[in-house]
Amino acid sequence: MTPGLAFFYGGLVSKRNVVNTLLSVFMICGLAIILWLAVGYSLSFSGNAFGVVGDLKAVWLHGVDLTGLTPTKITNGLYLIFQMMFAIITPALFVGAVVGRIRFKFLLSFIICWSVLIYYPMVHMVWDNGFLANLGVIDFAGGTVVHINAGVTALVLSIFLGPRRKFGQDTEAHYNVLWVLLGTAILWIGWYGFNAGSALAMNDIAVQAFLTTTVATATSMMTWMIIEMITQGKPTLVGVCTGTLCGLVGITPACGYVTVSGAFWIGLLATFASYGFISLIKPRLGIDDALDAFGCHGVSGIVGSILTGLFASKQVNSSIAQSGLFYGGGFKLFGLQLLATAFTIAFTAAVCTIIIIGLRRVVKMRVDEQEEALGLDQGEHGEVADYTVPMSKELSSMQAHSEEFKGQLSQLLNHQERFR
Amino acid sequence: MTPGLAFFYGGLVSKRNVVNTLLSVFMICGLAIILWLAVGYSLSFSGNAFGVVGDLKAVWLHGVDLTGLTPTKITNGLYLIFQMMFAIITPALFVGAVVGRIRFKFLLSFIICWSVLIYYPMVHMVWDNGFLANLGVIDFAGGTVVHINAGVTALVLSIFLGPRRKFGQDTEAHYNVLWVLLGTAILWIGWYGFNAGSALAMNDIAVQAFLTTTVATATSMMTWMIIEMITQGKPTLVGVCTGTLCGLVGITPACGYVTVSGAFWIGLLATFASYGFISLIKPRLGIDDALDAFGCHGVSGIVGSILTGLFASKQVNSSIAQSGLFYGGGFKLFGLQLLATAFTIAFTAAVCTIIIIGLRRVVKMRVDEQEEALGLDQGEHGEVADYTVPMSKELSSMQAHSEEFKGQLSQLLNHQERFR
Amino acid sequence: MTPGLAFFYGGLVSKRNVVNTLLSVFMICGLAIILWLAVGYSLSFSGNAFGVVGDLKAVWLHGVDLTGLTPTKITNGLYLIFQMMFAIITPALFVGAVVGRIRFKFLLSFIICWSVLIYYPMVHMVWDNGFLANLGVIDFAGGTVVHINAGVTALVLSIFLGPRRKFGQDTEAHYNVLWVLLGTAILWIGWYGFNAGSALAMNDIAVQAFLTTTVATATSMMTWMIIEMITQGKPTLVGVCTGTLCGLVGITPACGYVTVSGAFWIGLLATFASYGFISLIKPRLGIDDALDAFGCHGVSGIVGSILTGLFASKQVNSSIAQSGLFYGGGFKLFGLQLLATAFTIAFTAAVCTIIIIGLRRVVKMRVDEQEEALGLDQGEHGEVADYTVPMSKELSSMQAHSEEFKGQLSQLLNHQERFR
Repeated sequence: MTPGLAFFYGGLVSKRNVVNTLLSVFMICGLAIILWLAVGYSLSFSGNAFGVVGDLKAVWLHGVDLTGLTPTKITNGLYLIFQMMFAIITPALFVGAVVGRIRFKFLLSFIICWSVLIYYPMVHMVWDNGFLANLGVIDFAGGTVVHINAGVTALVLSIFLGPRRKFGQDTEAHYNVLWVLLGTAILWIGWYGFNAGSALAMNDIAVQAFLTTTVATATSMMTWMIIEMITQGKPTLVGVCTGTLCGLVGITPACGYVTVSGAFWIGLLATFASYGFISLIKPRLGIDDALDAFGCHGVSGIVGSILTGLFASKQVNSSIAQSGLFYGGGFKLFGLQLLATAFTIAFTAAVCTIIIIGLRRVVKMRVDEQEEALGLDQGEHGEVADYTVPMSKELSSMQAHSEEFKGQLSQLLNHQERFR
Repeated sequence: MTPGLAFFYGGLVSKRNVVNTLLSVFMICGLAIILWLAVGYSLSFSGNAFGVVGDLKAVWLHGVDLTGLTPTKITNGLYLIFQMMFAIITPALFVGAVVGRIRFKFLLSFIICWSVLIYYPMVHMVWDNGFLANLGVIDFAGGTVVHINAGVTALVLSIFLGPRRKFGQDTEAHYNVLWVLLGTAILWIGWYGFNAGSALAMNDIAVQAFLTTTVATATSMMTWMIIEMITQGKPTLVGVCTGTLCGLVGITPACGYVTVSGAFWIGLLATFASYGFISLIKPRLGIDDALDAFGCHGVSGIVGSILTGLFASKQVNSSIAQSGLFYGGGFKLFGLQLLATAFTIAFTAAVCTIIIIGLRRVVKMRVDEQEEALGLDQGEHGEVADYTVPMSKELSSMQAHSEEFKGQLSQLLNHQERFR
Repeated sequence: MTPGLAFFYGGLVSKRNVVNTLLSVFMICGLAIILWLAVGYSLSFSGNAFGVVGDLKAVWLHGVDLTGLTPTKITNGLYLIFQMMFAIITPALFVGAVVGRIRFKFLLSFIICWSVLIYYPMVHMVWDNGFLANLGVIDFAGGTVVHINAGVTALVLSIFLGPRRKFGQDTEAHYNVLWVLLGTAILWIGWYGFNAGSALAMNDIAVQAFLTTTVATATSMMTWMIIEMITQGKPTLVGVCTGTLCGLVGITPACGYVTVSGAFWIGLLATFASYGFISLIKPRLGIDDALDAFGCHGVSGIVGSILTGLFASKQVNSSIAQSGLFYGGGFKLFGLQLLATAFTIAFTAAVCTIIIIGLRRVVKMRVDEQEEALGLDQGEHGEVADYTVPMSKELSSMQAHSEEFKGQLSQLLNHQERFR
């Protein structure tokens, strides 16, 4: 699934930054796995310090009985692997915000600090016996822990980094939409592993989660497409892919608790919120969240997390203490979901700020102007995605074999030649 | 799997139509899911009107007990999801016939009508308690319902649309064969979900379907490759991928009923039929089924559906009433399969014609000449697949770094410049 | 998984040889399946001739009870399918060594001979009741049978073929790193099918194999990245992908026998060995193993196979006769693993040499100089991967929209023009 994200982001960035984007996401697979086994599992699921974080007794899986059973009757080994997947994908999500200007070594260091100080505590608080879990907050497959967390981190990183210097619109054109679609497809399929898998068994809740995930996602992609057809007259592939992602994010915290109709409304509202934020609010903020990691994961995650407090139903999933507001459970769950959402935003933003301020004293955060212009593929990796001649945006809008096209291309190329 | 088809078709079209092809296939995921839940499941599996179609009692899954069990002892929820996959992939198949000239909005509207008037009735007739099922027609994983249906629809759409206006051979060169191979690989793997999954259980029939699917597909790809080696001297990747698809299509209706040897013969004959149609018959018809949706799915589907009446064996699958002609069952099953095949062709062609004639009064069917020349990516979506400089077919056949190549490229580019 | 390998290799070769590389790998799917059913299963698992090979009694699955159970209680049909996957992927591995110069027909013929004379005997010797299995040699998922075998074959083929004629560094630049990453991702995911699947059940050993595979692979990719950061200052995507593969290869023979710590050490040492061989030893040998099939699969396979004799533990897997040296089992298993490794190298090298010497009398082995320069895509298949204008390595290192770039590009193109 993490490679899916690599392709989604890699297809969206400009050609100068493709390798850097892919490697930034992919290396997290290795890094997060090692960290998870070294300290992550222990800090998340061993012991309980102040309801906030675990202890270090299970460092490098010390004393963990891999064949023992969890309360849901899967082995600890399997649960550890399942949770490891979340620990990999979450930091990969916010890479989308910082592409084109963050130094590779800073990102590497930041992810280590972020995992220990933000991610493992969040897992402990919501999914182990932390204080949010004990209050009765529900989050089926990662609304707070994964998406709001990653979205807010993306926003804070974008603010501290500052926007990319743009050398003309051209150079910021996407690399290749086929990779965006491939990434979306892999994410969608992989998401079922997270959402249906979070039932931790092959049972009716897993089937329900599969179905609600499907409904919300289909609703979101259609909604985004229709919005584009109405506002711009033309639906785009990148738009439909973004809509798909918003639906997946929105339903994540709710998927095992809501009905098919609930899923429909969550998909619809998450898409409106994300589309509205990205097209109306973001341009006025001046924050360069390059690939909308906050606009998509943050916003849809917040919507999904709060709506879970409205649409959750004990009839769908008898394991929860009460239904949401719309299903006769009163305001309690809704209040709890609001609280968890607000807490996650505040906690992540605060600790993130501290990490960045501390870390940038030790490791330089942003590449220099020249490297940014040249592209991070050359600057950070000395590697090129492919060896094809790039075309400007204006040229590409002409018919490729027309005389006008040939002339324009020729002019462009002869520019220097003629003025000798 | 539908993204697999998107990449297969996207890799085959010219660069001007890649985004349109991808989006036409991908948006069907969203559209078909919503339609399926809204009315499709109900029209397919609820009640029985004249043995032809279901009723509307289960609209938006109203009253459906998702956790109840089907006769094969999987939950209704799971069966509904499984059948939804077929409802998504089938309309995506015929997109291959109409690329490069159909208006996006017409396609959208057509798929809605087609699903309600053709697809759901076909499902009801063959897989629920419709009249074909009651006669004893067998179709393990979609020969009639999926492939013949989609193939014939592709043919009818091609006829009404008329051929693409070609502005020189060049512009019709495929976009990128790697995406064709990726699409083929995804389809092959996903197909096991359909073919083995149609056993609706993890049992010996599923293993048998897996094995026969494998044998037929391997036979088909080798057969196509050998035919190309003999007739043209050079095997091509696009050819081998097409052969692979023919094998998958051919074995689909038969996979849970035939032996390994039966699968071999079905793979062999489906490939000969499709290769023969595409290379010998199609050029004389003057019908522009752009990516051979009929030549592959229609022809191999017909062959597979009929051969099921010859090769089916009660020893392989005891659930059928009688074996095929070659396995001692006499002419009964063969006759039934012929009937089902002929009925599907006639029914689909007739209703398809009615839909098109009606719909094109309301929605314009084909893009105008200028948009077709410019490409539908620009015209329908305002989006470009990638920003690389395209090369003509003649140029590409030269060695990329030879002086001759550089000279030719330079000449092409300077054409307009020199004559100023 | 085999398509994964096709993309991994296809992304690494120069643009002139992409189609040939993809097709060489992909056609093996068809060829190896047919061969496996025709004679492979029989020669591997039916009877026992001299402890070296099976017999021909089960040709074309004759007399095989597909629904019967193996000793591990899965059906013969399922085991046959599982083993078929290994028979497909193994010959595909050594394609990486010979790209850019081997004739397609020679490769086709070679794989048939190699399967019958090398591969099926290896399977019988190690995984059925052959002499190595009876001695107590262990190989969980294919260290000797798959990786050492394929690596040594790659080396021998490279030696006999001779190196590629290089027409300038430029033309040997990789095609596209996104396909390399996609290939790596598919291989990683598919590898779990092999490694965890080799437990032949959904049990604790499968979970253990999943976990050790993950640990070794993460360790390897991080190790390779850190080595590159230290020695060259810049981590590369191709490097990290190669590291990932080394980890997967190294842990393969050990994954069901070792602890998480054992997996860490195996991943670390396999990477050092492969990196050392590829960067230090290979350049001095003058052997053109184009995509490091031996450097990766051979070297890491040898390391993994031998280290299994050190790190295997009866506590992890009670089915083995004794633990390795480091886990209190003494030198016996270590000696056996050394023997199996040495035998595999010698056996493969010897029979491979015989096959090549015999076969090249009948089929020409290498393409002629002109075809090699033009590229095998044109020469062997008359097909082009995509129609984009290629760029030289020097040009690509400049910023794509700078004036300098435009000037250089223009100069290059006008070279011939100006001197008329």
